[in-house]
Amino acid sequence: MDIIEQLIEPNETKIVLLVFDGLGDIDTGRGTPLEVARTPHLDQLAREGITGFHDPVGPGITPGSGPAHLGLFGYDPMSYEIGRGVLEALGVDFELRTGDVPARINFCTVDAQGKIVDRRAGRIPSEEGQRVCDKLRDIAIPRVAIHLRHVKEYRAAVVFRAPGLGGHVQDTDPQKTGVPPLPPALTEGFEDEGSRRTVQIAADFIDQARRRLAEEPKANMLMLRGFDLYEPLPPFKDRYGLRAAAIATYPMYKGVSRLVGMEVIEQGQETEEQQFDVLEEHWAEYDFFFVHIKKTDSYGEDGNFDGKRALIEKVDGLIPRLLALSPDVLAVTGDHSTPVALRSHSFHPVPLLIWSKNARVDPVQAFNEKALTAGGLGTIPAKELMTLLLAHALRLGKFGA
Amino acid sequence: MDIIEQLIEPNETKIVLLVFDGLGDIDTGRGTPLEVARTPHLDQLAREGITGFHDPVGPGITPGSGPAHLGLFGYDPMSYEIGRGVLEALGVDFELRTGDVPARINFCTVDAQGKIVDRRAGRIPSEEGQRVCDKLRDIAIPRVAIHLRHVKEYRAAVVFRAPGLGGHVQDTDPQKTGVPPLPPALTEGFEDEGSRRTVQIAADFIDQARRRLAEEPKANMLMLRGFDLYEPLPPFKDRYGLRAAAIATYPMYKGVSRLVGMEVIEQGQETEEQQFDVLEEHWAEYDFFFVHIKKTDSYGEDGNFDGKRALIEKVDGLIPRLLALSPDVLAVTGDHSTPVALRSHSFHPVPLLIWSKNARVDPVQAFNEKALTAGGLGTIPAKELMTLLLAHALRLGKFGA
Repeated sequence: MDIIEQLIEPNETKIVLLVFDGLGDIDTGRGTPLEVARTPHLDQLAREGITGFHDPVGPGITPGSGPAHLGLFGYDPMSYEIGRGVLEALGVDFELRTGDVPARINFCTVDAQGKIVDRRAGRIPSEEGQRVCDKLRDIAIPRVAIHLRHVKEYRAAVVFRAPGLGGHVQDTDPQKTGVPPLPPALTEGFEDEGSRRTVQIAADFIDQARRRLAEEPKANMLMLRGFDLYEPLPPFKDRYGLRAAAIATYPMYKGVSRLVGMEVIEQGQETEEQQFDVLEEHWAEYDFFFVHIKKTDSYGEDGNFDGKRALIEKVDGLIPRLLALSPDVLAVTGDHSTPVALRSHSFHPVPLLIWSKNARVDPVQAFNEKALTAGGLGTIPAKELMTLLLAHALRLGKFGA
Repeated sequence: MDIIEQLIEPNETKIVLLVFDGLGDIDTGRGTPLEVARTPHLDQLAREGITGFHDPVGPGITPGSGPAHLGLFGYDPMSYEIGRGVLEALGVDFELRTGDVPARINFCTVDAQGKIVDRRAGRIPSEEGQRVCDKLRDIAIPRVAIHLRHVKEYRAAVVFRAPGLGGHVQDTDPQKTGVPPLPPALTEGFEDEGSRRTVQIAADFIDQARRRLAEEPKANMLMLRGFDLYEPLPPFKDRYGLRAAAIATYPMYKGVSRLVGMEVIEQGQETEEQQFDVLEEHWAEYDFFFVHIKKTDSYGEDGNFDGKRALIEKVDGLIPRLLALSPDVLAVTGDHSTPVALRSHSFHPVPLLIWSKNARVDPVQAFNEKALTAGGLGTIPAKELMTLLLAHALRLGKFGA
């Protein structure tokens, strides 16, 4: 990566990275959603650009959303690991500082013996989650600043802020019912003083929380997951010389965008049309736009073939609005595959197209899994995508004389 | 690479590497020069061989000519960096010796206070550059041999030869006008005795030059750039067991061939026909021939589509002469792409074919960018090409038992 940083040259060109979450799929008889979808605009981009696939982390590796996006952003997901707690805290707009230890809170229901009967507290509605979360606000631990944010339903985030904390602490969620939550403990193989301190703090926090939640009908206990010591990544601006904006609807994707120093535009956008509205309104202000379409993944996880297909078609219909802005480089891809038949993230390489007047056009005529096997890019590691986008945007100088 | 050296086995087979400088291009509406050119012989080679692309340095990286050729020759351009001074000296046919410190001279114009008013001395014509360069010939520094070569216009090359010199010396070019040239100084982070000595020598050289140039109307001062300690690379002969010859027309490509220990055949060849004459005459003497066709790159840099196309057709017409020599392996490629539309080197992977009776024939029927996307090689790093050529020439033994 050092080399890329050294080659960065200023330019006025604009890059759009349009990500359909969980885009890739497999054909179990009727074609994939992308193959079946009517996508005249994406097909046109494929005809005029260069296509192929990317491997989010490595061949055969199914990525979580965090690593998958880091890869797309050019940060090797094998080198830059992010904990769930960091993602959750970033996802609710919490401005983490270096050295913070965030963790994810899951409210749960325990019986009179303290054994878990519902790991999600009956999926309490968000109002109730907010209310029980507020009950924890007066928890105090000497010399530790505690920040709480409700996230959604039974989920919340906590951030412990104190000097010298460590992040090597195990989840207290035993991943099953009929047993009590686990006590906080060091991650196997770690014994650092900072993490010991975090274990103490977490135990104290859980203790105080238990007393405050005891009378709740559902959320009468909590579990902590995804402890992690926060260190921001080298920011986009420094690495690529790009003023970058994220246009997402879900906290998690906003979070990972912040992690790499993107500005997250918040205008309450919820629909894909609204996301494109935001793109248009802010077009002049940034060099790079990350537009994150969430629901392709949700439909994949639900096993909803037609939902996934229809959403792809809907966004295809919005492409002309994007092209009307005259981007210099437009990449369309996913962060990973979420095949309908598997109802989960998968390891399958992800469809990718790069459209630019500087692209070497390949013979591919349509944007879907089968057509792209003839693509000129082949299958590239996701972490190389940003270099290619910068290159197509003529933002990289020559290496050597 | 160590592994390749260990696997080398003697054989009588002959390899030709035919490089069209800047060969690759992009299609901006009428096809690429290679797609449009009538190339029956190259197409025949593609039908009978295996094809694809190479990435000179890495995905998205635009290489200079030095790194691009090192890659083709099997030297990782990321590990073997060549300084500007070395390239400049090699480019004017100067035979560098181990331990030499070459640097590039830029003549400039300074005012009465010694501040730079023109960093290129008004782009003096070459005759004037040669004349002022000659004024420096009697500069003497005790125990240092100083070699001077005029290059072009306001540019020249100097080589300092003395025992124990170092190359960690900064440019004296401040990269702006209105300030004096910088005094020679150690590169940040380096303090070796040899480089200190080079700093002294450079300061002395500049001092004496200043006095000799004082009366010049334009080139009344000079700046030194691209200091580098010359160390030849591990030679071709040792690494590959090949007696290798370079048949090039431009100094720079002869230089980089010398850098890897090739013999550079000098018979005043200028046209491509003459290059093929040289090839025929010396066919018996070498195992490996690097034939460098320069003008495809020049036409690309000039934005001259038809010139590039016509030159490709011309060289295509010479291929039968090459085949009549019965090479065992013939590779045809470029060192990098120089798209006509960009008028500069670019990052695009470079068309490649390997023709040999031992090649696994792929379905590709023509030698051009679109056809090659279906090639059996895919896109390989350039540095792997030499291994493939040796393998096709049956010059590599088995790895393991």
